[in-house]
Amino acid sequence: MQIYHANIIYTPQSRRFEVVPDGYIAVCDGKVEGVYRDLPDHLSGVPVTDFGNRLLIPAMNDMHVHAPQYRNQGIAMDEELLPWLKNYVFPEEQKYADMTYAERMYPRFVRDLWRHGTMRVVTFASVHLESTRLLMHLLDDAGLCARVGKVNMNRDCPPGLQETVVEAQEACGALVDEFEHEGSRVRPIVTPRFIPSCTPEMLQACGEMARHYNLPVQTHLSENLEEIELVKQLEPQSRHYADAYYRYGLIGQTPSVMAHCVWTDGDELEMLRNHSVMVAHCPTSNLNVASGLAPVRRFLEAGVPVGLGSDICGGHDFSIFRMMVYAIQVSKMHYQRDKSCSFLTLSEAFWMATKSAGSFFGKVGSFEPGYDFDALVIDDSELMIDTDYTLPERLERFVYIGDDRHIVGRYCQGRLVGEP
Amino acid sequence: MQIYHANIIYTPQSRRFEVVPDGYIAVCDGKVEGVYRDLPDHLSGVPVTDFGNRLLIPAMNDMHVHAPQYRNQGIAMDEELLPWLKNYVFPEEQKYADMTYAERMYPRFVRDLWRHGTMRVVTFASVHLESTRLLMHLLDDAGLCARVGKVNMNRDCPPGLQETVVEAQEACGALVDEFEHEGSRVRPIVTPRFIPSCTPEMLQACGEMARHYNLPVQTHLSENLEEIELVKQLEPQSRHYADAYYRYGLIGQTPSVMAHCVWTDGDELEMLRNHSVMVAHCPTSNLNVASGLAPVRRFLEAGVPVGLGSDICGGHDFSIFRMMVYAIQVSKMHYQRDKSCSFLTLSEAFWMATKSAGSFFGKVGSFEPGYDFDALVIDDSELMIDTDYTLPERLERFVYIGDDRHIVGRYCQGRLVGEP
Repeated sequence: MQIYHANIIYTPQSRRFEVVPDGYIAVCDGKVEGVYRDLPDHLSGVPVTDFGNRLLIPAMNDMHVHAPQYRNQGIAMDEELLPWLKNYVFPEEQKYADMTYAERMYPRFVRDLWRHGTMRVVTFASVHLESTRLLMHLLDDAGLCARVGKVNMNRDCPPGLQETVVEAQEACGALVDEFEHEGSRVRPIVTPRFIPSCTPEMLQACGEMARHYNLPVQTHLSENLEEIELVKQLEPQSRHYADAYYRYGLIGQTPSVMAHCVWTDGDELEMLRNHSVMVAHCPTSNLNVASGLAPVRRFLEAGVPVGLGSDICGGHDFSIFRMMVYAIQVSKMHYQRDKSCSFLTLSEAFWMATKSAGSFFGKVGSFEPGYDFDALVIDDSELMIDTDYTLPERLERFVYIGDDRHIVGRYCQGRLVGEP
Repeated sequence: MQIYHANIIYTPQSRRFEVVPDGYIAVCDGKVEGVYRDLPDHLSGVPVTDFGNRLLIPAMNDMHVHAPQYRNQGIAMDEELLPWLKNYVFPEEQKYADMTYAERMYPRFVRDLWRHGTMRVVTFASVHLESTRLLMHLLDDAGLCARVGKVNMNRDCPPGLQETVVEAQEACGALVDEFEHEGSRVRPIVTPRFIPSCTPEMLQACGEMARHYNLPVQTHLSENLEEIELVKQLEPQSRHYADAYYRYGLIGQTPSVMAHCVWTDGDELEMLRNHSVMVAHCPTSNLNVASGLAPVRRFLEAGVPVGLGSDICGGHDFSIFRMMVYAIQVSKMHYQRDKSCSFLTLSEAFWMATKSAGSFFGKVGSFEPGYDFDALVIDDSELMIDTDYTLPERLERFVYIGDDRHIVGRYCQGRLVGEP
């Protein structure tokens, strides 16, 4: 048992912050025992770590990112989608056939997640089994939790990024044997890149792997209009893009997270709701790649779970705090056009990044009893240029204008996570 | 005479970067003498400051910011426009009647400009003469160049922020006497807050001050739809918002910079072009305050000069580099809806922030001969995770993912500017 003393802020509900100034949080076996305004009798004698006037908040979860695009972060932003894939994305991923290259890049990727306070991640790797294993070991060694997808793809990409269905199945089995155990921090996730990169046989095999091993699924959905048109041609028997995934068993059998969903609406939205599919909202990426503005308010109103994703390298920023800002800004563009569509508040964006996203991992992202103690200690003293900021204002200033310099402590499952 | 050696990047034209790897720039009396790939004979013997593998780029210009909103940076982002003005913006500005408060805040404001590489600024102060004088002296002492506006306003705001026309005229005269001299770094600018805050008499007086003292003008134009509707009612005889300013002599007599112009189009756009009015594009502010997406591509095509503004505290970020990213992203939303409206490239955004904005101050924002040597030294070694980034890619990575930590040298008018 361990007690932490700080200004505690979290979001049990989306609509408002739970704020406990000068509060105490008791942690037992890595899980929250309770949050207290005053230390109760039954906890007397338990050691207290005192963070003083600092903020203590749930840690960040990044629900969509491409680890092997790390080198391309912040470049080629003037490129259109197709030349960008051809000239930057695919050539970079091919490099991860080379373990020496992976050994040079992946540790930096893991360190940047850590640096920005992201303690859990759902990430794409590349098609390569060995470098995917390396990434998984690095995340585990760093003390982070993750679902890592060895990508499945077998069409419309360079030969060096293609695999056979049998290779895909064998690699999945190997990763399950090695990583999919009770209590594992880092586990595999079935990851067909997206429909244009996979033949029907590959998609079918992915659905079977998900069912056979009871693995979750991640992929891309309805990111941009040209892509949606292409999927319509490739899967004429499906009612919409999500329906194609559904027919292959990639939605509905096991939990799944779908990146983007910029153009998801109507029956597709209904399907996400009915199968509790999580949307990974990636607002910087959607702006950078000119995809559009995802209708997040509509997702929330429909009861579709939403988390936030950095989507490096379509997105340029690792910080999930920065994703909150962008998510709010994008929602204000919907609001500007239709005032009945209220914009996201800070507590809603914070909730999406913490408790909503965290639900993909279990009881994660809140400080309610029984939740994993995933937490960040924020030293915002540099930002306290006046004496009378409220605690929610202090949090808001950190989210809007703070950065990794202000994150001075990181916990995952109750363990202090040092620099990898 | 002084020579600097570095990787030199600047934008003489908007469409492409001028890149001089391992180049030399000669500076004489604070002005660029020339940029050279190899050191020419006539410069042998001149002392060389060697920045090695670092980048040397023109410094940033912030064309719209509210200095007395410094404390409100990054808070109240969930508020709607009117309660935000009433509960945050106006109460904060009233504090600047108190010199003790101004002495606590304005030095931090100046330091943050410096920190983010902004060497020139066109800023609003508050209605108060004495704290405006303090701000001007602080900027001058710091070695920055500025146009600072003591705000004029006399209606629809708290009594503590109102002044009479005579007070406005006297204050303007005093600031001109003190600051408007040949060679002054920091000078006044006529600053009616915007039409709803000024009676016709005040607007008339502002136009007369601009003409009488030959001062430039800054104000807000066509920021949001409700505001435009209100201006229509207040100025029924004007064809549009800009025409109202024109009729009061606030456009067309002397150079002017208009913040936002989100909804400027047609005849209003034509008027800005005809009078070479500079638009201060403030993309973060426009998103945060849910104003809309300014049609910057149309401004550029029409030949209207555009600079970038942080608009603290409608905007939350001081960094003009971050404004470039947002300007590109906002332009991509226009592009997404209309593919014939090409999005802004990085060189265009960089040019807007440097040479285009700089033109408001004279020959500023480029490294062409005769331009003031306003420059930043960028140490991006931390971002060089691979060996084969090109120089434009290095600049792009710094713009997208770098921050003040990577700015290791700042020059204004040829002088090294240390931390204020």
